[in-house]
Amino acid sequence: MDEKQMHGADYDSIQEQRTDELSRLLDNRDMKLLQRRMEELNEFDVAEFLTEIEDNRMPMVFRLLSKESAAEVFANLDAPEQGRIIDSITDSELAGLLEELYVDDAVDMMEELPANVVKRIMRTATPQTRALINQYLHYPENSAGSIMTAEFVDLKKYMNVRESLARIRRIGEDKETIYVCFVISADRRLEGIVTVKDLLLADDEEVVEDLMDRNVIFASTTEDQESVSEKFSDYDLVALPVVDKEGRLVGIVTVDDVIDVMEQETTEDIEKMAGMVPSDKPYSRTGPLEIWKKRIPWLLFLMLSATFTSMILTSFENMLAVEAALVAFIPMLMGTGGNSGAQASTAVIRSLSLGDTEPEDALRVIWKEWRVALLCGMTLAAVNFAKMLLVDGWILHNDGVTVTVAAVVSLSIVFIVMFAKVVGSMLPILAEKIGVDPAVMANPLISTVTDAVSLLIYLYMAKLLLHI
Amino acid sequence: MDEKQMHGADYDSIQEQRTDELSRLLDNRDMKLLQRRMEELNEFDVAEFLTEIEDNRMPMVFRLLSKESAAEVFANLDAPEQGRIIDSITDSELAGLLEELYVDDAVDMMEELPANVVKRIMRTATPQTRALINQYLHYPENSAGSIMTAEFVDLKKYMNVRESLARIRRIGEDKETIYVCFVISADRRLEGIVTVKDLLLADDEEVVEDLMDRNVIFASTTEDQESVSEKFSDYDLVALPVVDKEGRLVGIVTVDDVIDVMEQETTEDIEKMAGMVPSDKPYSRTGPLEIWKKRIPWLLFLMLSATFTSMILTSFENMLAVEAALVAFIPMLMGTGGNSGAQASTAVIRSLSLGDTEPEDALRVIWKEWRVALLCGMTLAAVNFAKMLLVDGWILHNDGVTVTVAAVVSLSIVFIVMFAKVVGSMLPILAEKIGVDPAVMANPLISTVTDAVSLLIYLYMAKLLLHI
Repeated sequence: MDEKQMHGADYDSIQEQRTDELSRLLDNRDMKLLQRRMEELNEFDVAEFLTEIEDNRMPMVFRLLSKESAAEVFANLDAPEQGRIIDSITDSELAGLLEELYVDDAVDMMEELPANVVKRIMRTATPQTRALINQYLHYPENSAGSIMTAEFVDLKKYMNVRESLARIRRIGEDKETIYVCFVISADRRLEGIVTVKDLLLADDEEVVEDLMDRNVIFASTTEDQESVSEKFSDYDLVALPVVDKEGRLVGIVTVDDVIDVMEQETTEDIEKMAGMVPSDKPYSRTGPLEIWKKRIPWLLFLMLSATFTSMILTSFENMLAVEAALVAFIPMLMGTGGNSGAQASTAVIRSLSLGDTEPEDALRVIWKEWRVALLCGMTLAAVNFAKMLLVDGWILHNDGVTVTVAAVVSLSIVFIVMFAKVVGSMLPILAEKIGVDPAVMANPLISTVTDAVSLLIYLYMAKLLLHI
Repeated sequence: MDEKQMHGADYDSIQEQRTDELSRLLDNRDMKLLQRRMEELNEFDVAEFLTEIEDNRMPMVFRLLSKESAAEVFANLDAPEQGRIIDSITDSELAGLLEELYVDDAVDMMEELPANVVKRIMRTATPQTRALINQYLHYPENSAGSIMTAEFVDLKKYMNVRESLARIRRIGEDKETIYVCFVISADRRLEGIVTVKDLLLADDEEVVEDLMDRNVIFASTTEDQESVSEKFSDYDLVALPVVDKEGRLVGIVTVDDVIDVMEQETTEDIEKMAGMVPSDKPYSRTGPLEIWKKRIPWLLFLMLSATFTSMILTSFENMLAVEAALVAFIPMLMGTGGNSGAQASTAVIRSLSLGDTEPEDALRVIWKEWRVALLCGMTLAAVNFAKMLLVDGWILHNDGVTVTVAAVVSLSIVFIVMFAKVVGSMLPILAEKIGVDPAVMANPLISTVTDAVSLLIYLYMAKLLLHI
């Protein structure tokens, strides 16, 4: 790193300078220097650079990369660019690329590529790679098996430290991590783990069996990736072994894969909470028709559920004709109910997903939300009462807004907020109990439930206090 | 790991068995065996166990732990339990505990503990530890400086592999990671990084300078933690060096801390999107008064902004009195507008926060959302038209629902959805451009904007088509 660059400038602007230099070299056709500069750069940044240059020149630039960087850069590209490169290289180049890729990256890629390209890949791969890819493609989607990698360092418990380090040196080159080594028996059962730190800090003659940690945290191949990522966050892991039904070690999940899983799971939760069918493609690469398919189901369902509010309003048509001023506050009341409920449901959904709240805490949650709702309801009611008399009555001269009408609206707020918060906090817990994802119990659904009840509370309150 | 346990059983149930055993040992006062079993268990699980036993016995059980495990278990406890332990140990025990804790964990703890406890900690700490803690407490909240740790392995570029490995063996014990080592100059400027993997795979006589990667990805002390976590996810890092304004290496951030940061940032985003002031305390440990403080600002603001919808409805009072049937569809139209807008804003907010969409993509996003809106709007309008004639008109005998009224409502849906989706997708981009967090442009705020516009579209459409 140049000293000049390290003074003051931040990493992003340095990166930009470098990418600009690459573009300049490409424009000047200085391929020699371009090749050298690309090797110096991080694979992620090279991938970014490739995405930015024109489609027809890109594969040519990609071929300048050395065998090892080529595989890493390739793994960082999106499916369209990967497809373009595969189309432009020979079968033997493709076979070489496949051998360099980690199996999990190869499988990720194949899940997104068109069928004819997948066929070509399977044809060119070596029998071992083909078998491995096939095995991976058979694990359930989003399971530990589907995100694990087969490239790990295995040791035997009778090895001493010197032998272990020698083995790491010998086979470590292609492994996704060498820092956690897995101790397995003759029939490949996982017996313990030992870190490179343990090995380096021990004497050469010490035996793995005495150094290894037998209390291994592991996942099974069919375990959901969400549970895998919880283990990483709870136990601060660098790598997690994955075992099959017989307890045999079949792969490991590394922390960098888990970070991707966490982003993906969060996106899914957020999409569900906003009434969308989750998608595993980024927004920028999803077409309007696909987006429509993800959004229309909930919009239709919620629109049709609003039939209840229509029916309630129709049945009170005569009362609303007499007290026309009441209509003006319906949107505010329904909005307040919806927002109050959404706050409670969102807080509880997030707390459930972080493991901070369990379904058994239902009573404690109700009691808490009940008190929050009382506080919020009374604050809102007081402010609204003053505002209606001052703004609607006095400033805007709305004659329909009497003290009684203001009281009806304000009292309704208290009950609506109480109902919304308690229901909003309970629906996600109920969902979790019956095995449905709590995230779908968020904003849109809660709003539709509270809309109908808010209306009923308001209209009955009006009937009672206004004697109509 | 026992073979029996590895057959079929999953990790969680094994863990539960172990915790049950600990409770049994505690009940039988078999402290010797309890002590041994706790040392075998993962620190996170021991912390969980301590949280579950009664408050008065907990510190006693904690003192059974060895010095090293004690610090790690302690770092995994929540603030109330940490306070209880500190209250029950002597000053010299406290000083020992502080020396064992990583600085970032100690600082985390001190930010949550009551002032008198913090004072006692600062009094008992050694001068070096005290200086370090003070330095950390001065970095801005949520900056790279506030989450970094000072325990890293530094090497010099003229060292050879044998010397480097010897140094790692000598000082590695207390470092948060030894797998990435940082090459610094005499005046502590960061010159490159070298991994233990590089060292292990190289010959003993090779020199660090030839092995190190000079293109180091780094963060500055004041950089926001969100940008730090993006670097981890983009570049698949295990550790990230943090440098001060002069380019001197002052600390490192490790991947386990970043996973916590990611969870925290996501929670904040989700809370903002649901109209809450973000909180850094878990829901289960936040009291009703505090929750009220986080929720009431947005509820008040949104309630008061609904004054616009009230005014619109009041000004159309006469028209609504003539065509009373129109009132029944107001909630459905406002709900559909709110939900459509929230879908678009949520998709764009998430895409912005993952770096998939940039503010410069505004035109492309509008064009996409416009087409999605047209598709969604026409689908909803068609279904609604059929539903109104069939359900409201024919089954429910609502005489007010004529073909013209159904047309007014259905046409309004098309325009409302178009408006909601375009505005919903643009507000987050606008926020990003002017430097406001896009997450606050979510559901509640979008709903309030679309509510007013939806009403205007509907009421003018009615005026136009019904000639009133």
